[in-house]
Amino acid sequence: MIVSADMMRELIETRLRELDVSQADASCQAMILVEAELRGHSSHGLQRLPRILLRIANGLCDPSKSGTHCWRSQAILEVDGENGLGPVVADKALDALISRTNETGIAVAAITRANHLGMLAPYVEKVARVGFVAIALSSSEALVHPFGGTRAMLGTNPIAIAVPTAREPFVLDLATSVVSMGRVHHYAASGKPLEPNWARDRFGQPTTDAEAAKHGALAPFGDAKGYGLGLAFELLVASIVGSVPAPGIRGTLDAQHPCNKGDVFLTIQPNGARNLIELLADFLDDVRRSEDAAERAIRIPGDGSRERRAKSLATGIEIDAELWQRLQDYAPLQPFAA
Amino acid sequence: MIVSADMMRELIETRLRELDVSQADASCQAMILVEAELRGHSSHGLQRLPRILLRIANGLCDPSKSGTHCWRSQAILEVDGENGLGPVVADKALDALISRTNETGIAVAAITRANHLGMLAPYVEKVARVGFVAIALSSSEALVHPFGGTRAMLGTNPIAIAVPTAREPFVLDLATSVVSMGRVHHYAASGKPLEPNWARDRFGQPTTDAEAAKHGALAPFGDAKGYGLGLAFELLVASIVGSVPAPGIRGTLDAQHPCNKGDVFLTIQPNGARNLIELLADFLDDVRRSEDAAERAIRIPGDGSRERRAKSLATGIEIDAELWQRLQDYAPLQPFAA
Repeated sequence: MIVSADMMRELIETRLRELDVSQADASCQAMILVEAELRGHSSHGLQRLPRILLRIANGLCDPSKSGTHCWRSQAILEVDGENGLGPVVADKALDALISRTNETGIAVAAITRANHLGMLAPYVEKVARVGFVAIALSSSEALVHPFGGTRAMLGTNPIAIAVPTAREPFVLDLATSVVSMGRVHHYAASGKPLEPNWARDRFGQPTTDAEAAKHGALAPFGDAKGYGLGLAFELLVASIVGSVPAPGIRGTLDAQHPCNKGDVFLTIQPNGARNLIELLADFLDDVRRSEDAAERAIRIPGDGSRERRAKSLATGIEIDAELWQRLQDYAPLQPFAA
Repeated sequence: MIVSADMMRELIETRLRELDVSQADASCQAMILVEAELRGHSSHGLQRLPRILLRIANGLCDPSKSGTHCWRSQAILEVDGENGLGPVVADKALDALISRTNETGIAVAAITRANHLGMLAPYVEKVARVGFVAIALSSSEALVHPFGGTRAMLGTNPIAIAVPTAREPFVLDLATSVVSMGRVHHYAASGKPLEPNWARDRFGQPTTDAEAAKHGALAPFGDAKGYGLGLAFELLVASIVGSVPAPGIRGTLDAQHPCNKGDVFLTIQPNGARNLIELLADFLDDVRRSEDAAERAIRIPGDGSRERRAKSLATGIEIDAELWQRLQDYAPLQPFAA
């Protein structure tokens, strides 16, 4: 079925308000889920809401909290997320970072005990729109096997990077697994086989059976180099935040454990050179048009999301009818299968 | 032939001293070339010396300069490299960053007009050994085609990341091309064919002919994700440093142009949690031992370099005899084919 972004936002806000989430915080959480849907990343969209509601109901998420701030040094903000809603904690941290970056030129937020942030792109894009470079990193449960290995030891360790340009900001957002576990679940639900080399089963054997892969491990993207970067991002988060590595992480995929992953945001003032943002926008256009044939236009990260977003805003978002109905019928005090 | 690290260091220093490079700066430049050889990355080793000497002789590198420093904000150091030797400019910038990071918790150096830095790993490793996380990025000439494209539009955009642990620091150092242009030249010299999908020729056609690939473009590593990261790193450098993107970059592969790429170093205080560095070292050991069979030990980035380095220190470095002789016979005032 097709729903509008406004209908979806309203439904999410209603369900959150019933659990005593403030209107502002419900809007903040709704925005990040709706943005994922608008950009075509339904794995980070509405399907995450049942788990969020259940985590609130189970006392694992305290939506009255937005995180306490402590500047460990002039430009390092330590945030104790107090089990608050991820987007609420992150937005407050980003506001503090942006303000500090005006003074120090660069600042970093090290966030613990925030619930799942959702899709990272909207956060870094927001920073780029006020004129700063932004990098976001999150750690997560062990789902990815090392290059040459077969067992899940690493998180999917996403990274998002945004850079201001004179036109739309450059926005990259990717996981360092070859494919997301959300996509594996989607393949499993629709009975589709996985591509070879995407996943291992629980015994470490290569599999194209999506159901078996759900209990196994995903491959890192890009062989040894992608594995190396994913591992580096995992260590960066653990070192800056003081959080545990992936095998000890719980609470972003379940409704039984407090969330103990780490999140890092980095904000940097760009160089003040005249015309720099025009130069960067022109360079990206040069890359887009670097092939002779118009039908072979090169894609810049973020282009697809931007197009899908514009289309979805105009014509609505395709959503699973059963999920929609389930969320319409949701009774707040009744345990909900996440 | 086999030479010792000391013999190599001495030869490099001698050739540089003849061009009026100070003993300290000659040592600094020699160290970075010898470290690359010790770690098995000869593409960043002794074979770079002829070009460095020629750039000094041609006035494109002024080895009397070490870069001027200006703190644009509390934690952003702008470095004008004044055409100095890359390692000399970088080392001075890193010393200033480390000192500032003690106060601010995080700091960044934005370096212009430094000559080629060489292998990035030793720089970030040095920072990790004094207890800070480090990230290094450099831009470079256009050598890499976009994912889905055929023409060189991006630099090889290397990244190095180091994280302190209780044992050896984690050190990652990679280019975002699937293979380095140095390796393509090596294949061309030895008449070996390239792997499929590594490169395009000057007409944008896929090729396994290393000679043809030298005038074409390298593929990005990791398909769309690797391309996206490489492009993001390129934009990060351009935005933070104010340097031009790859198609406008000259001076790291030639001896005719001043070097106008950008270099970025980022240094960050880790979290002060007790036992954090032990936790990270143990996690890396868990990853190494995550397979049942001992013969299938998983590699952590940096492990191979460390082993090769120990072996080369003990038994010497394998070096091309012709290159060695050429550098032994080098006459300082005679133009030298780089």
